[in-house]
Order: sequence, then C-alpha cells, then structure tokens
Amino acid sequence: MTSEYGLLVADLIGVAVFAASGGSAAVAKRLDLFGVAFVGFAAALGGGILRDLVIGAVPPLAFADWRYAITAVAASIAVFWLHPRLNRVRRTVLLLDACGLGLFTATGTLKALDAGVPAVGACLVGMLTAIGGGLVRDLLTGEIPVVLQREVYAIIALGGAVLVTILHRLGFAGLAPVICAAALMTGVRLLALRRRWSAPVAMP
Amino acid sequence: MTSEYGLLVADLIGVAVFAASGGSAAVAKRLDLFGVAFVGFAAALGGGILRDLVIGAVPPLAFADWRYAITAVAASIAVFWLHPRLNRVRRTVLLLDACGLGLFTATGTLKALDAGVPAVGACLVGMLTAIGGGLVRDLLTGEIPVVLQREVYAIIALGGAVLVTILHRLGFAGLAPVICAAALMTGVRLLALRRRWSAPVAMP
Amino acid sequence: MTSEYGLLVADLIGVAVFAASGGSAAVAKRLDLFGVAFVGFAAALGGGILRDLVIGAVPPLAFADWRYAITAVAASIAVFWLHPRLNRVRRTVLLLDACGLGLFTATGTLKALDAGVPAVGACLVGMLTAIGGGLVRDLLTGEIPVVLQREVYAIIALGGAVLVTILHRLGFAGLAPVICAAALMTGVRLLALRRRWSAPVAMP
Repeated sequence: MTSEYGLLVADLIGVAVFAASGGSAAVAKRLDLFGVAFVGFAAALGGGILRDLVIGAVPPLAFADWRYAITAVAASIAVFWLHPRLNRVRRTVLLLDACGLGLFTATGTLKALDAGVPAVGACLVGMLTAIGGGLVRDLLTGEIPVVLQREVYAIIALGGAVLVTILHRLGFAGLAPVICAAALMTGVRLLALRRRWSAPVAMP
Repeated sequence: MTSEYGLLVADLIGVAVFAASGGSAAVAKRLDLFGVAFVGFAAALGGGILRDLVIGAVPPLAFADWRYAITAVAASIAVFWLHPRLNRVRRTVLLLDACGLGLFTATGTLKALDAGVPAVGACLVGMLTAIGGGLVRDLLTGEIPVVLQREVYAIIALGGAVLVTILHRLGFAGLAPVICAAALMTGVRLLALRRRWSAPVAMP
Repeated sequence: MTSEYGLLVADLIGVAVFAASGGSAAVAKRLDLFGVAFVGFAAALGGGILRDLVIGAVPPLAFADWRYAITAVAASIAVFWLHPRLNRVRRTVLLLDACGLGLFTATGTLKALDAGVPAVGACLVGMLTAIGGGLVRDLLTGEIPVVLQREVYAIIALGGAVLVTILHRLGFAGLAPVICAAALMTGVRLLALRRRWSAPVAMP
C-alpha cells in the first residue's frame, strides 16, 4: 500500500462521514431519497468543489474521479435506510467527522499552495475545503449554517491551515506533515467537543 | 435552418420557460421588478453557469452570448406583467418545463463529455445543468429546493444523462441522439406528472 | 501616490464597508465571532470572487492578495466590538456603501471587458460584483436578499455598468472614466436614498 493510496482511502472516509452528516440533515427535513443523496453529495464534496474552482483545477475532483461521487452517494443512501440506528453510533460519527475536519483542511491547504495561491489565501482555501460542505448542507436544508453560530470548528481548521502553510514554507514535504497537522486538528476538535468550548457572541 | 440554429432556438425556449418559473416564484414572494428579473435570470441560467464553471468554459455562455441573458430577462418581465393569466396556461408551462428538463440535461451532459469530463462526472454535470437553476431559484426565495423534496424530476435527468453518455461512448454523434434522449426524458417527465410518481421518503 | 495605489485604497475602503454590513447582519443574528468574521468576508469579497470565477481569473483576488482578506476580517471584527456605536454613524455607513456600490461596479465591469467578456455579459458581471456580496450575506443569515425586495440599488449598478461599457467602447481609457462613472452611481444612489425611490412590485 503506497502512501498515495493511503491518502485516497483516508480522503474517501472523510467523504463518507461528511455525506452521512448531509444525509442525516436531509432525512430530518423529510426530503425524498434523491434529496438525501443530493444533500449528502453536496455536504461531502461541496467544500472540495469550491476549492478546485478557486484554484482553477477543472473539472473538480468530485467530477473527475468517480470514486468520490459514488462514495458520497452510497453513504447518503445508507443513512436513508439506517438513520434510526445512527444515534447509537453518534460518538463514532463525531470522531470520524473530527478526522475529516483535519484531513480536508490539510489536503486543501496543500493543494492551494501547490497551485500557487499565496499563504493567506491558501489558509482560507484550506479552511473552506473543510467547512464548505457543511455550509452548503445547511443552506440546502433551510438553516443558518451551524458553523457560523456555535462550537469551535472553523477556527481549528484555520489554525491547522496556518500550521500546514508554515511547515510547507519550512520545506517539509511529503505525507508526514499532512498527517501530523491533520492529527493535531482532530485532537483539538475532540478536546473542544469534550470541554464544550465555544466562540464568543457579541453583546446585544 | 441549420441544426445548430435549431438547437439554439430550442435552448432559448428552455431558458424562457425556466425564467418564467423563476419569475413566478419571485412574484409570489412580492419581490420588486428587479428581483423578478434577477430570480428569473438565475433560474434560467444558474444551471448552465454552474456547468460552465465546472468544465472550465469561461466566461460562461450566459455571459458570453447576450441572447441568453436577454431572453431570460424578457421572459421574467413578461411574467411580472402577465402573471395573473399564467394559471390559465399552467399545463403549457409544465409541458415546456419538461422539454427544458430533457434538453438542458442532454446538452449539458454532451458539453461535459466534450470537455473531457469522465463518464460519471459528466452525468452529474448534465443533471446539475437541468436542476441547478431551480435550486438557485428556491434558495433566493427562501425555500428548501422543491427538487429535493418531492416529485420525480432530477432522477429523470440523471437517467437521461446516463443514456446520453452511453450513446456517446457507442459512437453516436451529431444532433439525433441528443434529440432522442431529450424527447425520452420529456416523455417520462410528463408520465411522472400524470401518474403523480414520487420518490420514497425515509421512515421517521 | 500613483493612480493604481489610489484605486487600491478606494477598493479596500469598499471592502471594509461591505464587510461592516455583513458583520452587522451577523451580529444581529447572534452569530459567534467566527460567524461574524466569515459573513463579513463573504459580504465584502463574495461579489469579487464570483466575478473572478466567471472571467477565469484564478485564484480570485480575494485569495491572491492578502490585503483584501485582512481588511474584510479586521472590519468585521471591529463591528463585533463596536456595533452598539454603529447606529450613531449610520449616515456615514450608507454614504460609504454608496461609494462601494459605484466603485465595485465600475472596476468589475472594466475587469470583465478586459478579460474579453462581450458587452452585455460585462454589464451583468459588473452588477454582480456590486450586489453579489450582499446576496451571499443575506443567504448566509437566512434572509431573502434585500436587494431583490426593495430600494433602488442593483438597477443603479446596472445603469452604471452600461455607462462604463459605452465609455470603454468609445475609447476612453485610464482611471478618469472609472471615477466619473463611480461618482455618478454614488450620487444617484444617495439621491435614491433621500427620495426613498423604490422599484415596482407586481399586482397580486
């Protein structure tokens, strides 16, 4: 198993988890089977599509590599059938979501840097890769995006993207810095969940 | 009348019908004249703009060929003045919308294949061309997209896109396969309307 | 101070004002600090990102030049802390917003023309540059976009974009026509505010 293959498998796990989050939101809104599959697809791949449009990588990976679309749709449809049992594995889903957060941010930031986007822009692109899918999921289901309202989520992605950019500038190449940064983001996210950290809200 | 000219006229009829659907939704929400024209434009051309961004055809056709924008805006403004009389022609509008569904899917899929998008991605792009405008229309007017909630619409587009891709791979070229696939989608859509087919919703 | 530097400073003032409008909307919806910064960023730079994607200028300026992102985020965070005092400067904010409207439309139209977009498309791109940020701001905060509902705003942008295009076709180059057109749009917008002009709404 090469490192590239390992990265693909990790990426597809992230896609499946984000698709499951989209599928769950769609089921809760009583959307039909197509709606569940579509919102799942958008939640899993919306961030990556936005990233690829911004860095000029067309067609975006979600359309260029069939494994991404199939994984997203399969995970969404699985949620359609299995959703009553999802509550029992809620902790697992949150853990996998934290892994997706770390991994999507790290790979998104690196792809932007490799495409020649300057440092500040690359950090923003990396963060958007991680939170873009959730934004689209909430807009499609008629909600104000949860990532803008509470919990510490996007700010971890932004911090991780800065770390990846610094490591990249210092000359660290290959898979190791990606995995370290992704693991760090995942760990901080799990800590934020456990300690119920939240960002401040403006005084009225 | 060349076949290219025929395809353009058919395309513009689809644009006008989708613009009318957007204009009607905007009138129902009490938007002003500009809002009606804008939502009509977005409903008619949003799917095509998304398609062109994904396949890297910039500027998108909606901005590169003035006939598309003018048709969309003219149809929207006509709805602004004529909307009380639209109910009388509701059956005609549904028929034309079914034609637009078939045509937008077929041409969108072909454009994606010609731009080098692989088969699965091209089917998704073709479907998005047909449903993208309605998605944007519903988001702009504060609704959960109707295409995600009920009726059999997007799944017909997806099936038609698969058919177009298969015909393309088998070497059928030119206008004939486009028209056959578009006509088939239109027919199935009219059947779905008449029989009130709907996709399943997850059990609570 | 060169004219290019002057244009950049004017552009950044527009970014700051539009970010403040996004930040205010986010504070009103009780979003957290990150949400305020994100909606401010989207309101300030969403129109320009859309413009750059449509004309194929990737990565968009918002990601390529760090001064834009930093200005938008700094202005949003300032609103987070200072918002109770914003009402006192409401007239100033409306004045600066009118300046942003004129400037974003003029530079957006010119960039589209320079990128080879035909006249009608360039006018639409110019208008989208000015209103796109407000659209995204309202969608993210769960509102039907205000620009579609009342007041004369987008139509001034469209008229200004037509003027810029005509001046460009007549061979006027350089900064002067941009500034004249932007000033004219700003003036008409202030007049529209003072006279409470509004566009017609369809009869029920």
